[in-house]
Amino acid sequence: MMVGYNVAILGATGAVGTRMIEQLAQSSIEVASLKLLASKRSAGQTREFKGRTLIIEEATPDSFSGVDLVFSSAGGSVSEALLPEAVKRGAVCVDNTSAFRMDPAVPLVVPEVNADDLNWHHGIIANPNCSTIQMVVALAPIKAQFGLERVIVSTYQAASGAGQSAWNELNTEAQAHLNGETMDAHILPAKGDKRHFPLAFNLLPQIDVFEADGYTHEEWKMIHETKKILLGDMNAKALKVTATCVRVPVGIGHGETVYFETSDEAVTAAQIQHALANGAGVVLEDDPATQTYPTPLTAAGKRETFVGRVRPDLEVDGAFHMWVVADNLLKGAAWNAIQIGETLVARDLVRVSA
Amino acid sequence: MMVGYNVAILGATGAVGTRMIEQLAQSSIEVASLKLLASKRSAGQTREFKGRTLIIEEATPDSFSGVDLVFSSAGGSVSEALLPEAVKRGAVCVDNTSAFRMDPAVPLVVPEVNADDLNWHHGIIANPNCSTIQMVVALAPIKAQFGLERVIVSTYQAASGAGQSAWNELNTEAQAHLNGETMDAHILPAKGDKRHFPLAFNLLPQIDVFEADGYTHEEWKMIHETKKILLGDMNAKALKVTATCVRVPVGIGHGETVYFETSDEAVTAAQIQHALANGAGVVLEDDPATQTYPTPLTAAGKRETFVGRVRPDLEVDGAFHMWVVADNLLKGAAWNAIQIGETLVARDLVRVSA
Repeated sequence: MMVGYNVAILGATGAVGTRMIEQLAQSSIEVASLKLLASKRSAGQTREFKGRTLIIEEATPDSFSGVDLVFSSAGGSVSEALLPEAVKRGAVCVDNTSAFRMDPAVPLVVPEVNADDLNWHHGIIANPNCSTIQMVVALAPIKAQFGLERVIVSTYQAASGAGQSAWNELNTEAQAHLNGETMDAHILPAKGDKRHFPLAFNLLPQIDVFEADGYTHEEWKMIHETKKILLGDMNAKALKVTATCVRVPVGIGHGETVYFETSDEAVTAAQIQHALANGAGVVLEDDPATQTYPTPLTAAGKRETFVGRVRPDLEVDGAFHMWVVADNLLKGAAWNAIQIGETLVARDLVRVSA
Repeated sequence: MMVGYNVAILGATGAVGTRMIEQLAQSSIEVASLKLLASKRSAGQTREFKGRTLIIEEATPDSFSGVDLVFSSAGGSVSEALLPEAVKRGAVCVDNTSAFRMDPAVPLVVPEVNADDLNWHHGIIANPNCSTIQMVVALAPIKAQFGLERVIVSTYQAASGAGQSAWNELNTEAQAHLNGETMDAHILPAKGDKRHFPLAFNLLPQIDVFEADGYTHEEWKMIHETKKILLGDMNAKALKVTATCVRVPVGIGHGETVYFETSDEAVTAAQIQHALANGAGVVLEDDPATQTYPTPLTAAGKRETFVGRVRPDLEVDGAFHMWVVADNLLKGAAWNAIQIGETLVARDLVRVSA
């Protein structure tokens, strides 16, 4: 009889990895052993897990021998190199990078939305991008009840979505600005890009690098990941999705203005609110009379996706606005990954089939 | 022969009033005399204008005797009480409050867009809301060349749009947060509303108070002011406009993601960019290859409206995204008002007709 799973967290020292350790400790997954893996540079550091001190080890292919379940958030190239090795050794991997998301053989999963896609995994399950996850959690109950034809989203994304170093940079810049000093930028808008701009008291309409068509890669992800999750095909035509992604000077918590057209021109805002209030993983915070709506500061540290400002387009039947906020490090990353792990365990899918 | 105008600035001590003095000093308007007016509380303070020190006087109806041109930014109730008195005494008033914007007898003017509406003024000209002004400056050349059927806008609005005190509060909150202290909020999201929330490192999806239909008054303004400016009727049906307005932790400079559908399904992004590059008051900053796009920090202190991130909806012909940024205190308020004054002077319209 199975008494627990041998788990590894790859990228254990980052903003997401740290939270994966916390979320795993609070999860229903029975952990027989936990291995914390990172780059050579971080090896030797320690982290706490359920009162025990664990030493971080350098990740190598053989690190995964005997491991059942891997949660990875160490960057796309690390996932590409190491996760196939982990799978070869029998581990099931939940990957928070974009490395495998668009592989048709890899399920891209938000448990509240498309948990059944876990049934056909071949060892790797991809965790979607943070901005996609919270949007599809909010859209799924609406799509299920009223159909969905079109989505136009604008994002307000927190610095921590670009990692701990970007988040630190925001705070350093903010202090410099308040001191009347010049702000130095070295990371945002995109680590690998040529030019860097301050985010504090500013807005950067670039997240990730630009594609040839003028969209950023973040916008591309929101479009194609949403289609893959909601319709099973990254190029599905049955739902039109378009996006603009903007980085805002917030530490934790992405906001999104989501405009959508349902298939039902007679649907009311009250019906949309009812669907959301009953939606899995959704908390409806929506009462103008008491100024109730979600904000990043109130959503930070929570696992749910918060929705407010639901109201109809006054000139287009069946079209609505909503305002969606979630903790990008939890539901947008660490918690969604651990939740996939919980679902794999509950469905007895922690095994690699050919 | 006229040697200059007797000018008054009402509300001369606020964030906008201060900038009205500066913009007037730099304008083509020949100023014979300048009177700075404010509430009793501010009377006796001084301000500089072209090297002279002026003493601020308490505004009363008789303050406007002998005044030709008034620029007002002292709040809606002050404008309602005093501007009709100024008009009675022969002054032409450019009002930056919302008091008269929806009066069918009052032109609502952005000079680059609808300067001809100045021809039918009866003494009061309304300056539109900051978020509306920058959007219509960008939309006008597109509408003129390709027609415009639908606009869906999400705003990213700076704290200074709610006044100097809100801007100060953002900075105080930010410092408290960086010190690890609790943030106290007393002003935002809306001065007169019941509850207040911190803006620093946060997002507030409420600007101004809520209307009965679930839209905020700011969103209502963007919808109806846009229709009045672009089509001459605040309820015009020929253009659908809908909006979500969000306050962001920025000092100066509103950002807007503007999604629009033209009447021409064959129009290309290059044609939209060309129209914008030649649009009055527009600066196109749009080159993904060099990460060129507008931001609040680069737009602050400038009079123009900056546009970037122009790209087509990949699934809807004739539909596009753009990112619009302007200094909300200049083009969004003080400069647009002074620019109206310049246009009135140039067209010899600084006189009150019956």
